[in-house]
Amino acid sequence: MRIGGAPTGVGERRWMSENRAMRTIDAAPLSEKQLELVDGYWRAANYLSVGQIFLLDNPLLKQPLTQAHLKPRLVGHWGTTPGLNLVYAHVNRLIREKDLDAIFIAGPGHGGPGVVANAYLEGTYTERFPEISRDEAGLKKLFTQFAFPGGIGSHAGAETPGSIHEGGELGYSLLHAFGAVLDDPGLLAVCVVGDGEAETGALAASWHSNKFLNPARDGAVLPVLHLNGYKIANPTLLARMPEPELESLLRGYGYEPYLVSGDEPRAVHQALAGTLNACAEAIRDIQRRSRGGLDTGRPRWPMIVLRTPKGWTGPKSVGGEAVEGTARAHQFRMAKMDGVGRAKLLDSWMSSYRPRELFDSNGGLAAELAATAPVGARRMSANPKANGGLLLKDLSLPDIRAYAVTVPSPGAVDGEATVVQGRLIGDVLRSNPNNFRVFSPDETASNRWSAVFQADKGCFMDELLPADENVSREGRVMEVLSEQLCEGWLEGYLLTGRHGFFNCYEPFIRIVDSMVGQHIKWLETARKIPWRRPISSLNLLLTSHVWRQDHNGFSHMDPGFLDHLAAKKPEFVRLYLPPDANTLLCVTDACLRARDTVNVVVAGKQLAPQWLTMDEAIKHCEAGIGIWDWAGNDTDDSPDVVMACCGDVPTVEALAAVDLLRTTAPDIKVRFVNIVELARLRPPEDDARGLSDAEFETLFTLDKPVIFAFHGYPALIERLVHRRANGRNFHVRGFTDEGTTTTPFDMVVLNSIDRWRLALDAFEWIPMLAARAPWFLREMHGNIVRHGEHIRRHGDDLPEINNWRWDPRPKPGRTLASESPEEINRVVA
Amino acid sequence: MRIGGAPTGVGERRWMSENRAMRTIDAAPLSEKQLELVDGYWRAANYLSVGQIFLLDNPLLKQPLTQAHLKPRLVGHWGTTPGLNLVYAHVNRLIREKDLDAIFIAGPGHGGPGVVANAYLEGTYTERFPEISRDEAGLKKLFTQFAFPGGIGSHAGAETPGSIHEGGELGYSLLHAFGAVLDDPGLLAVCVVGDGEAETGALAASWHSNKFLNPARDGAVLPVLHLNGYKIANPTLLARMPEPELESLLRGYGYEPYLVSGDEPRAVHQALAGTLNACAEAIRDIQRRSRGGLDTGRPRWPMIVLRTPKGWTGPKSVGGEAVEGTARAHQFRMAKMDGVGRAKLLDSWMSSYRPRELFDSNGGLAAELAATAPVGARRMSANPKANGGLLLKDLSLPDIRAYAVTVPSPGAVDGEATVVQGRLIGDVLRSNPNNFRVFSPDETASNRWSAVFQADKGCFMDELLPADENVSREGRVMEVLSEQLCEGWLEGYLLTGRHGFFNCYEPFIRIVDSMVGQHIKWLETARKIPWRRPISSLNLLLTSHVWRQDHNGFSHMDPGFLDHLAAKKPEFVRLYLPPDANTLLCVTDACLRARDTVNVVVAGKQLAPQWLTMDEAIKHCEAGIGIWDWAGNDTDDSPDVVMACCGDVPTVEALAAVDLLRTTAPDIKVRFVNIVELARLRPPEDDARGLSDAEFETLFTLDKPVIFAFHGYPALIERLVHRRANGRNFHVRGFTDEGTTTTPFDMVVLNSIDRWRLALDAFEWIPMLAARAPWFLREMHGNIVRHGEHIRRHGDDLPEINNWRWDPRPKPGRTLASESPEEINRVVA
Repeated sequence: MRIGGAPTGVGERRWMSENRAMRTIDAAPLSEKQLELVDGYWRAANYLSVGQIFLLDNPLLKQPLTQAHLKPRLVGHWGTTPGLNLVYAHVNRLIREKDLDAIFIAGPGHGGPGVVANAYLEGTYTERFPEISRDEAGLKKLFTQFAFPGGIGSHAGAETPGSIHEGGELGYSLLHAFGAVLDDPGLLAVCVVGDGEAETGALAASWHSNKFLNPARDGAVLPVLHLNGYKIANPTLLARMPEPELESLLRGYGYEPYLVSGDEPRAVHQALAGTLNACAEAIRDIQRRSRGGLDTGRPRWPMIVLRTPKGWTGPKSVGGEAVEGTARAHQFRMAKMDGVGRAKLLDSWMSSYRPRELFDSNGGLAAELAATAPVGARRMSANPKANGGLLLKDLSLPDIRAYAVTVPSPGAVDGEATVVQGRLIGDVLRSNPNNFRVFSPDETASNRWSAVFQADKGCFMDELLPADENVSREGRVMEVLSEQLCEGWLEGYLLTGRHGFFNCYEPFIRIVDSMVGQHIKWLETARKIPWRRPISSLNLLLTSHVWRQDHNGFSHMDPGFLDHLAAKKPEFVRLYLPPDANTLLCVTDACLRARDTVNVVVAGKQLAPQWLTMDEAIKHCEAGIGIWDWAGNDTDDSPDVVMACCGDVPTVEALAAVDLLRTTAPDIKVRFVNIVELARLRPPEDDARGLSDAEFETLFTLDKPVIFAFHGYPALIERLVHRRANGRNFHVRGFTDEGTTTTPFDMVVLNSIDRWRLALDAFEWIPMLAARAPWFLREMHGNIVRHGEHIRRHGDDLPEINNWRWDPRPKPGRTLASESPEEINRVVA
Repeated sequence: MRIGGAPTGVGERRWMSENRAMRTIDAAPLSEKQLELVDGYWRAANYLSVGQIFLLDNPLLKQPLTQAHLKPRLVGHWGTTPGLNLVYAHVNRLIREKDLDAIFIAGPGHGGPGVVANAYLEGTYTERFPEISRDEAGLKKLFTQFAFPGGIGSHAGAETPGSIHEGGELGYSLLHAFGAVLDDPGLLAVCVVGDGEAETGALAASWHSNKFLNPARDGAVLPVLHLNGYKIANPTLLARMPEPELESLLRGYGYEPYLVSGDEPRAVHQALAGTLNACAEAIRDIQRRSRGGLDTGRPRWPMIVLRTPKGWTGPKSVGGEAVEGTARAHQFRMAKMDGVGRAKLLDSWMSSYRPRELFDSNGGLAAELAATAPVGARRMSANPKANGGLLLKDLSLPDIRAYAVTVPSPGAVDGEATVVQGRLIGDVLRSNPNNFRVFSPDETASNRWSAVFQADKGCFMDELLPADENVSREGRVMEVLSEQLCEGWLEGYLLTGRHGFFNCYEPFIRIVDSMVGQHIKWLETARKIPWRRPISSLNLLLTSHVWRQDHNGFSHMDPGFLDHLAAKKPEFVRLYLPPDANTLLCVTDACLRARDTVNVVVAGKQLAPQWLTMDEAIKHCEAGIGIWDWAGNDTDDSPDVVMACCGDVPTVEALAAVDLLRTTAPDIKVRFVNIVELARLRPPEDDARGLSDAEFETLFTLDKPVIFAFHGYPALIERLVHRRANGRNFHVRGFTDEGTTTTPFDMVVLNSIDRWRLALDAFEWIPMLAARAPWFLREMHGNIVRHGEHIRRHGDDLPEINNWRWDPRPKPGRTLASESPEEINRVVA
């Protein structure tokens, strides 16, 4: 391996030939004393890491290690940790020397022991968890708790002081780092990227985040690509490609890569120190030029490629098999040894860090080493920006009434819900110029938040052309064609104490199912940790939804994100399906004020009838569910059927079905219930927001049929009402994966939540009703056929569909004729 | 813009300075006649594309266009199509000249019109859909059906002849291309990558697929990165980065990029033709050298960067606003025009392609142009490899009995289920050396399929080191740390008629929720298309599952993929939860023989008790659900309670609960039901594999409590049994997101499917039982507390848990004492 140069002298070297490799810094900025200290700090962190992984007791090796001191299950994930500890120790030096405001993001899997060790060395761990004291007893607890029942996991996460990043599901470290530094010009996020995680899609794309980082306004990210050569069992792509190719790749991503490479600690210490100095200077120069107006384009940000052995400083080999520098160091196994052999090996390994130089006899860190760590909030483990709730400021929010659609009577006017919402979001951008952003996979305009672009622009740091619309280098709307990038940036932004809103086509939000699921886990874990303060909620507008995929076809239809989140703990999830613009404004306002949840809002962007005045909308959304008296006719509170709906298109269809019913059978009593928030349907023992059984029965009765028109998969409603007394009387229509290319209403028909079938359902489930008006069944079935023929010929819905409006006047009913049951059966079949 | 060079002369140019840009080919290989023909073919495809997007009638412009000829909804997605048509026409020339076996993959969104137009020009479309005839009437239908009710969508997909790629959800084109050419040395996949989709994570990572392509054994992929500059509304990253940076990026990915750039058709035709020739030669050289043993490393594959205007050949501007070459060309809108203006504009646009030169008066393609297309199976739209089911061969499969674990009596021996399964998979690799592969995100060894590596190796084309294990250039096990890459490759492999198995940690399969969902949509669509033949099923082993995340913690726990797939159409999904190794062998065998489904197998990798002999396992898996007589004691078929379980860990706990019950209350009659396949629980009206109500009642009774221990989220079982008569008597315990760092059994306890709580449930729900043995409630609650204390102290389960084994002998019961109900309530609270 190539080492970073001679012990003295400053210079730069670059290979220009075919064999040119990355830039290296041939400086040796550390004095002998400094080198000794940084090495001591690193050894201390390594010692504590190994202790966490393997030991239950005897943390200071006061006696020779025996099997009794070892954990009963030696899981042994060690490989990545020495690299993390190395970077951490060196960044500490840099923070002290340059008074930096920095956070540390540990991307590689199983990096927990290292990050925890450093938080402990800095004292933060004990401040947060006083029982893990800075003495021998605390060390024993620190060691025991790791990967132990009731303790902490193998990856950094919410329970780790200083972390805004969960290290379990790989690929999001750089995204979190870039999200963290947006609108925070003083912040430096040092982000260690594992060469395993670098193979993931999210990470591969996230290098391009530099195209959205404005050095005049935002902070800086220093990526450290740690090539330790192996992932779990295989060599990594980035470590094995020829080095000129890797350099080309990283320069192609827009970075200036500096190589630090070696397996001899002294040389690597000097090279890394010199390289960190060079990177810090490069960042400072970039920021100075940009902030001084000397440079407005995208700079070539520095980054570090750190090539050191996997499991460095651990055993070189075990039983004749090489370990250090191989995949076997990923999860250090001692399966072939007996207990005595294991204890002996670990004793020798841990002793190699010379713990007596590092800790006093009571377990305290040697004063000289402790003095090299940053202090107070400069400690990366104690930086308040990594506990963003501490710094969170409420948004300045306008009164939503100012955006209200005037609704003289239900259905009297049409409106585009997301257009109205976009005006509100635009003003939120205006009023909160430093702590609110919009994120979207290039869909903000398509989703009709065009008002957002009257308030601000998309951010784009590369060349702009005259034909470009709505982009500028100063914009705060983050648009990139990757749901993963949007989600990851937003998480980083929220976790550091800011606010945001992500707008997305409904089907493609599923690309980030897993990311959102992991964020919910973060919230669940953080809620149990007293020093983690609540953060702003993660807000998702899902539009261009399943019922409005006119031309795109089946690939653009999937309402299942609701099912995904409904499986999570209810207190961390809000699922809103507002039926019109004013209700959308209400739930948007709630989203912008919420904390520690993931809020999903499903709303259409097309012109559609408006139902509620602002006052009515506020009341309806506060309840989350309610009877629309004007739509029903069960004036005596004793309905024959409940027509329920959830979602904007289903609401239109359910109202149109009521319209059909009251023409046909004016004497049947229909109650109309609209649901805005799905949680209300849940039993209260599952969700505090669930209706009590008494409330539920007041709405849905104990025994009457409930015809339910739902935006998503019917099974979701079925599972929410499963335990309700009247649950089995819910007859749910929703999306059924019968997608094809269609006009909107054709989709509705194909998926069977159309007005005709809803009306037929009422006829089927209200006892005896079908027998009274068999001609109605014929007529409804005829409509379905006629409609299908019409749209296939004309490419548009039937005029009676296009021109249908809710008519508040009661309609005269047709006489209910009586035909034989045989006739009815014939018609329905 | 730079054009590809002078009209004559052959040469290569390369900028070596700071401003160096990509390699261009200064050849002009086309004769004047050839140029005219390729341009004519391109114009014909463009003409048909515009017609599809906008016209209902008058397809040959025999009259001046009027509003009546236009579609009622002008969606207008045009921007990407001329680029696709250009590449298609030129690849056609190359196929004819070099007799290539090629398929075409259209990555960009809204590419449907172009791919369909080319399939029509080649005659394939009419062969597949005879009503779309090659005459004026057929043209009218071709135009009308596009993005029209009952017609086809805006993106290429299963309904498009020649496509193995659905263009809706972006990012997977290169993955499908690479998957398609594995083990098919003669195949060339020409893959147009949109600069929008290139921003996605999956696409950004998938360039690295070249590290897994062995030129001696596999075919070739020719990526054509089409930089038309804009996605929906924004400039694209790859089009705007400085060209040297882009070159550096693509070279860093390992390609030799050739640039074709321009907006003048003649020059671009020559440049593209010359470049395609150069690429074909480079590919041939690479393959020749590799197949001749001259070169064993990873070659630098050629690729093309095609920089042409978005919406090229469309209107330059509309109403004073530039369109061609801007984001406005993405979705060509005429909102500001009246009907007359629209018709006039379209008439002029379509006439600019000079249709009278292209089509005869009956709509037939001019003979001279038709003669330039490849013929028969060489047509990319008719290549049987793009309809893989045509070529699909059954796997050669061993008798699973050869792998059976000998089980003398239930629970008598332990085994590691996935180890046993791995032996079978290894032999399938051995017996099917050209059409079966294993895919995994670097987890094959961790998931304990180590036997696979005795049969074959992981594939890795870069440098190999002595410390590497289980990798070689010839390996067919595809391991990369990206679930997206694994899934995309496997899809491409299956869609071209081969077989595979993907092994994955259970939680991280959620990263590909969306990809798997889209694949199911493909299967659903293909099932409706007679000429699409069934393909091999997509097989997923999910292991390292939620109940076995000893040390990783909460980030590694998510059983919700089952919920995700359960929402899809049942006929395309199989969800298997075998309780032991022999049942795992049975369902694996079923997976390997299945067609047109996504099969999910959830199974543990840890040592665990084995329950069924091979004969019993075969019978049990055939039924998918069954009573285990040996575990129950309801000999008179009249149980007091049904103890049901689904999943390996739940099965252990449920059996242990039965063990507790028969000690405590030997006179209560327990029926024991195990579920292997979730579909059996569904109502038969939803799923043909669902038990009839009568069968369901035979197993679960009409009114007895069913205590159900489930692997995943309880709500999934609740929704499956929602409509069953006894549905509300199902009391389900499963995973509840109470994850934390734990040993396995602690997880079980925290998530409340432990034996003690299951036994308590029986006591709660069997009428009067609790009153008979209140001491039992105390004892069970005491066990839970005692267990928690024990594991937190010792890091291991209680000895009575670790040492528990199923004992087939009936146990003497303790006397059921009688205590007061008040006492019972006190204890339970």
